[in-house]
Amino acid sequence: MNHEDTRGTNGHQNDDKEKETMTDENNPSQTRYEDGTVRLKNANIELMDQDILYHLALGSGSHDLVEMFGDVKFVCMGGTPKRMEQFAYYIMGEIGHKLPTGTQLQDISQYSYRYSMYKVGPVLSISHGMGIPSIGILLHEVIKLMFHAKVKDPVFFRIGTSGGIGLEGGTVVISEQAVDGLLRPYFELPVLGKLVQRPALLDKKLVRELKALHHPEDPYDTVTGKTLCTTDFYEGQGRLDGAFCDFNENEKMAYLEQIQKANVVNMEMESLAFAALTHNAGIRSSVICVTIVDRLKGDQIHSPKEVLDEWQERPQKLVSRYIKKFLQTKGRFMDSYCGSPCVKSPRRFKLVQQESENYD
Amino acid sequence: MNHEDTRGTNGHQNDDKEKETMTDENNPSQTRYEDGTVRLKNANIELMDQDILYHLALGSGSHDLVEMFGDVKFVCMGGTPKRMEQFAYYIMGEIGHKLPTGTQLQDISQYSYRYSMYKVGPVLSISHGMGIPSIGILLHEVIKLMFHAKVKDPVFFRIGTSGGIGLEGGTVVISEQAVDGLLRPYFELPVLGKLVQRPALLDKKLVRELKALHHPEDPYDTVTGKTLCTTDFYEGQGRLDGAFCDFNENEKMAYLEQIQKANVVNMEMESLAFAALTHNAGIRSSVICVTIVDRLKGDQIHSPKEVLDEWQERPQKLVSRYIKKFLQTKGRFMDSYCGSPCVKSPRRFKLVQQESENYD
Repeated sequence: MNHEDTRGTNGHQNDDKEKETMTDENNPSQTRYEDGTVRLKNANIELMDQDILYHLALGSGSHDLVEMFGDVKFVCMGGTPKRMEQFAYYIMGEIGHKLPTGTQLQDISQYSYRYSMYKVGPVLSISHGMGIPSIGILLHEVIKLMFHAKVKDPVFFRIGTSGGIGLEGGTVVISEQAVDGLLRPYFELPVLGKLVQRPALLDKKLVRELKALHHPEDPYDTVTGKTLCTTDFYEGQGRLDGAFCDFNENEKMAYLEQIQKANVVNMEMESLAFAALTHNAGIRSSVICVTIVDRLKGDQIHSPKEVLDEWQERPQKLVSRYIKKFLQTKGRFMDSYCGSPCVKSPRRFKLVQQESENYD
Repeated sequence: MNHEDTRGTNGHQNDDKEKETMTDENNPSQTRYEDGTVRLKNANIELMDQDILYHLALGSGSHDLVEMFGDVKFVCMGGTPKRMEQFAYYIMGEIGHKLPTGTQLQDISQYSYRYSMYKVGPVLSISHGMGIPSIGILLHEVIKLMFHAKVKDPVFFRIGTSGGIGLEGGTVVISEQAVDGLLRPYFELPVLGKLVQRPALLDKKLVRELKALHHPEDPYDTVTGKTLCTTDFYEGQGRLDGAFCDFNENEKMAYLEQIQKANVVNMEMESLAFAALTHNAGIRSSVICVTIVDRLKGDQIHSPKEVLDEWQERPQKLVSRYIKKFLQTKGRFMDSYCGSPCVKSPRRFKLVQQESENYD
């Protein structure tokens, strides 16, 4: 540790309403210090000279992580670097975050060549790649980052796409729970040659709070249900169009109907590890995905790109509403936002730009 | 299918020496047409109007895949886009491939925002991301690409980094077999709610051929052995420095010694799916990784970046030797290579560049 650690190691302040319904069998003092900052369930880290977060290109010995990330409250994750760069710019406008003149967003993890990370005030926007191992590595390092940066009670969101089960394309799904390909509600991984199981639980109160932010005028449904998390996109999700296929259309449909009866409403590839690891760390988290195809009607996606692009903004909008509401409640919303560069009059600004272009 | 398919669907020409030792319990006619082109174990694909390779941003209806990829022989995969772009330029020099004047390499899959793909004559260089699900999606789509492009007997390589078990850092490991975190020699995945197991076998002859390409003057060892493939980088590989850790140093060491006794020489996160999926497709393949740390001596990587960069070139060099030898044997090696742009005299070329710079 580079920083003096003034946090207590016992007890847990219960005055934070946000944690009321945290479904945590763990002793909360395992995952929080007295001041609400993140505590790790790994005593080794505090004893290390430096902790290198390899896949983020950050380190506790090389970077002042408290200075860089101490004000983070929300960590938003999604599949591709492009999507999460877009989300960073989108949330910047939404929460009225202003960059100093002459600056632009930088990919903090660009030299890892693995994940992309953008910071917009209290919001981190990070790409997680595809599949459980990829998001799993990221979560280990981001949870450690929260610890090193002394972040208080962060909230994690996964914003993504998914296949719907009996849902029209474009439906927003807030996951109540993640299950694996055998419908088991836990994340199983081999550790030292033995299978370890971790409950894939998501914060119930957060589900309700997000659901309540669906607007009646939104031209689509926002539903809750179980999310099935697979290790493969083709055979693992019962698609008939992979490189191999040992089952037929009837067997596929029987399976999809079976999981529908088990209250599965969508399928994707990261929720199981996301739920299990955040839960184990005592971090409130939620998975919000849009459905881009109804798997009961087919395997391939036929909607045009413009439609898909609009659909993919829907989970982002919902998370943005949550973040804005939180910041407004806490008085951290930037009312004085005037864009970057500071524009007093959009009309005159436009004029100056046009005039300027005449002199190139 | 956009192209007339003139391939037979039965029988198998056995005159190709390369396939002699293919460890394939499958009926070879399941994975090859009479002319040696790749056949899929999924009858649905031939019946589809178009097959969209979503994560590659390619499609059988939108692209002339035979024209684009028909001459491919080698598919090389590695973790990051940056590494595979570097490999593309490296192999271009090595095999004497010449680009037309005024052209440069393009990331063929740039609009997928998931994988990067470069083509250098008969060589594809593709990034696979981290973990089994990520390389699994890629393999489904690349195997289908081989089919659509009518590629004959392609050879797949995974070129990567790994943790060594009792090996000095910088050692090159050619995997004899992949095993999972429970030392089981197969890839298990849920399909339609049932666990399917696929043998994670790699081509034995290819291991021998690659091993024979180690030069006596190479300042490092090239060894063969089992590769343990994990679903996590921290707990899954017995590291003490993850966000959680429920075991101690002694338990870790006991585990690492146990897997060493089982002939495991290195650990990484993709070989299991790579071996299982290529084997199931009847495609000869090999996993060649360099070790970047000896896990019997520690968890964190302490070698300087320059050393690590040189180490990571070693598997690339070995694969390059294989590809060069193959092309020389087949008379496809470009002896007339003169670089791009064509340089008759490097001295005069340099002079022209310098002169040119004076007039900027």
